[in-house]
Amino acid sequence: VNPQYEDFKERFSQITHLRSVMQALTWDQETMMPESGALHRAAQVSTVAVIQHQRLTAPSLGELLYRLESESDALDLWERASVREARRQYNRATRLPEALVRALAETAALAYEAWVKARGDSDYGAFAPWLQKMVSLKREEARCQAGASTQHDYDALLEDYEPGMTVSQLNWLFAELQPQLTALLQRITGCGRQPPALPVGPYPVMAQEDFSREVLTAMGFDWKAGRLDTSPHPFCSGFSPLDVRITTRYSTTEISKALFGTIHECGHALYEQGFDPSYYGLPACDAISLGIHESQSRLWENQVGRSRDFWEFWLPRARRVFPPHFEDVPLDDFVWSINRVAPTPIRVEADEVTYGLHVILRYELEKELLADNLGIDDLEEAWDTRMKEYLGFRPDSAAVGVLQDTHWSQGLFGYFPTYLLGNLYAAQIFNQANREIPDLGKNVARGDLISLREWLKDRIHRHGKTRSAAELIQELTGHPLSPRHFLSYLEDKFGRLYGL
Amino acid sequence: VNPQYEDFKERFSQITHLRSVMQALTWDQETMMPESGALHRAAQVSTVAVIQHQRLTAPSLGELLYRLESESDALDLWERASVREARRQYNRATRLPEALVRALAETAALAYEAWVKARGDSDYGAFAPWLQKMVSLKREEARCQAGASTQHDYDALLEDYEPGMTVSQLNWLFAELQPQLTALLQRITGCGRQPPALPVGPYPVMAQEDFSREVLTAMGFDWKAGRLDTSPHPFCSGFSPLDVRITTRYSTTEISKALFGTIHECGHALYEQGFDPSYYGLPACDAISLGIHESQSRLWENQVGRSRDFWEFWLPRARRVFPPHFEDVPLDDFVWSINRVAPTPIRVEADEVTYGLHVILRYELEKELLADNLGIDDLEEAWDTRMKEYLGFRPDSAAVGVLQDTHWSQGLFGYFPTYLLGNLYAAQIFNQANREIPDLGKNVARGDLISLREWLKDRIHRHGKTRSAAELIQELTGHPLSPRHFLSYLEDKFGRLYGL
Repeated sequence: VNPQYEDFKERFSQITHLRSVMQALTWDQETMMPESGALHRAAQVSTVAVIQHQRLTAPSLGELLYRLESESDALDLWERASVREARRQYNRATRLPEALVRALAETAALAYEAWVKARGDSDYGAFAPWLQKMVSLKREEARCQAGASTQHDYDALLEDYEPGMTVSQLNWLFAELQPQLTALLQRITGCGRQPPALPVGPYPVMAQEDFSREVLTAMGFDWKAGRLDTSPHPFCSGFSPLDVRITTRYSTTEISKALFGTIHECGHALYEQGFDPSYYGLPACDAISLGIHESQSRLWENQVGRSRDFWEFWLPRARRVFPPHFEDVPLDDFVWSINRVAPTPIRVEADEVTYGLHVILRYELEKELLADNLGIDDLEEAWDTRMKEYLGFRPDSAAVGVLQDTHWSQGLFGYFPTYLLGNLYAAQIFNQANREIPDLGKNVARGDLISLREWLKDRIHRHGKTRSAAELIQELTGHPLSPRHFLSYLEDKFGRLYGL
Repeated sequence: VNPQYEDFKERFSQITHLRSVMQALTWDQETMMPESGALHRAAQVSTVAVIQHQRLTAPSLGELLYRLESESDALDLWERASVREARRQYNRATRLPEALVRALAETAALAYEAWVKARGDSDYGAFAPWLQKMVSLKREEARCQAGASTQHDYDALLEDYEPGMTVSQLNWLFAELQPQLTALLQRITGCGRQPPALPVGPYPVMAQEDFSREVLTAMGFDWKAGRLDTSPHPFCSGFSPLDVRITTRYSTTEISKALFGTIHECGHALYEQGFDPSYYGLPACDAISLGIHESQSRLWENQVGRSRDFWEFWLPRARRVFPPHFEDVPLDDFVWSINRVAPTPIRVEADEVTYGLHVILRYELEKELLADNLGIDDLEEAWDTRMKEYLGFRPDSAAVGVLQDTHWSQGLFGYFPTYLLGNLYAAQIFNQANREIPDLGKNVARGDLISLREWLKDRIHRHGKTRSAAELIQELTGHPLSPRHFLSYLEDKFGRLYGL
């Protein structure tokens, strides 16, 4: 027993507990808390957040990390990974001056309010000063974080969401993707064919929930270690590998939203439930990055949930659960319908082909804002122009254009790319799964999703953060992250669906 | 602005937040948490508990309290009450040596397990050594807490639950009560009459919940500041005056349990919702004592919920909600049925007449154990003998006798009396309410429960802990706590029901 490592473990298990507590309070707030409870909840969460931050930034922790690093040869894989991740968190937390942290939090709160109002009024000008302020603060934050090795301020911010990812790699990936996505979109819209619309229900909420629960069970969601509830904005929150909660929301006229939303969140949940509980409390017992987390949700939602194989098994069940609605819908029509490609100005409503274009547009603009290559006053016009170029139309208003997402008001710069990275990772991982799991498609087509779930757990989940995203992808697939798997998945799938 | 008082307020609002967080985690554990989550939940709660305890026992807080006390003339009513209560909590938390706190916690955990098993086997002997250990530790705790002014160890323990209450006062109260309760019981069982039994359902859970919610709404429960859920053991937990949660459990064969349980918990909840939210975070913004808390639940459950007035309004509604069951049950029979007096060995199933006898028995025995006037090995026999004396029979087994309650295994000595004090306070308070609220009975009989709820809020709830229990009762009713209101309430009610 290494007493220093024991001390380290004890400190981090408390930090982890405090984070779990914040997650539990936030989950409660979104799902259970009565309306008036909000007044004190913020203060309750922030009391715990401050204590957690104090623990993470304690100088004595810095000293302990230094000692552990000096003798890192004595540590095993999990121990080394945990010390490395603890160092990363410690450095990031201690590099920011307190005044900047406070300014960021205060500005985020006010900018969020301003954004809500500006979006309601579709008035970009009313939000612009807040965005200006936020961009300046984020630039300052990036400079506090940046080491000598980072070339762009943006790299330093990316590190919060996708450790190890860089602007130069994103530039390369997205430069490959954008023209090919735009071209595929044009071929699809140009072919003049569209799938029939699905019936508009009504789909009773209880039947939808039963159906979702059946799918989640088949995916291997562990109900003893998780829950499904409803909330205005669906999310997944893992308090620990043994308590992972997902939420969804139901529409009685549209079945896809809740269903694919639930499968998506369950993909996240399987990642969290897949960590080894005996490592709970260690910094390495966590997701590698937002992009890898998103790959798990996208893979289940798209590669699996929107596949013909999947519905070969589940459509007959859906016909029984929602008797009148799918009786006369042939399998191929159904699968085409749930994969309809229809450009929309709104990112969160986008299909698989156009989704990446929404992300690339945001990535380019936020990068230019930070680098001061684009002025705040020119952002709306830049947005609309680029939207026309990538997707073929200009949004009708700022509300469905530059003001549609909350991220920038919250200071989340560098976050958007992880959504598209999730799609790229998912395609590359699923491609590998198909090579390694015998007859994966046939398994899915007869309702067996467990072979995939077990493969993901064994190859990805249980390893936590013991490898970086780049190491994981290289190790798993034999080569670095590449856009080609995602592009050929789209070409293949939508080529077939639309008969291109 | 007094900067020292501001510092005090800030410290206590953090302590209060941390307590709310523990309550939220515990509520979640009882109502929502998936099974496997238990493994880490205990550690999460305990991480917060330790931090809360550190904050409460910080020497700098002791110094701050001392300075505030030296200048207490400058403080207003709420400020003085808060400093006084903070001092009480600080002293009680700092008087116990850490080793004793740990020994108590460890013994409670092990004794609880031993108790569960012993009760299952109905084997008092298997629990006795644990009880012996716990009694020794509680005696030690009492001696750490006791000031020069307390005469009995037991007084020092009472202080945790019913501040200001003493053995000599309890002895006097209970000596008045016991013979009269036993005599009333004998008159009732001797009269040979019993009410008809209520139908055994089935009462659908959803209908019961709807009905309960309607009653709670009429009582003035604020749904924007509260929730109703189910849990194995019903409870009320106020995270703040604006977030108060109650739970219940439903039986499909018996309607009374869930209904009166819910009314009982709602009585607690109205107390918590009745605190002034602008004082939230101050030590004085809390319940006066467990006895006063219990008075609020008992008053609503018994004085209101089991009254003829109440059912004059609600029985017609119950007939509509549960169509077949109460159609032919006349109001008077119904009211008699829900007030059936039937001695049982089990405290939690006891009626209003016998309940107090169960409490007095426990009070006497636990006091004697602590004073070493009764040996652990003689407890079972003492229990059974006294049960025969007070209630007329010996329990069939230890499981339904001396082992029935969990309290002693948890170290809760001095807790039982608060249940009966709740009944006494309730009767005295309700008697006063009837003097002050014009036509209270008629209001209740036409479904208006709000006049009572407002009176309780105005006279009791909103004042928090700015007065002691004794001050409150004196101020409210013009004389000290007395058993006579409770006794004459029982004589009157059960005399009428049983035609004595």
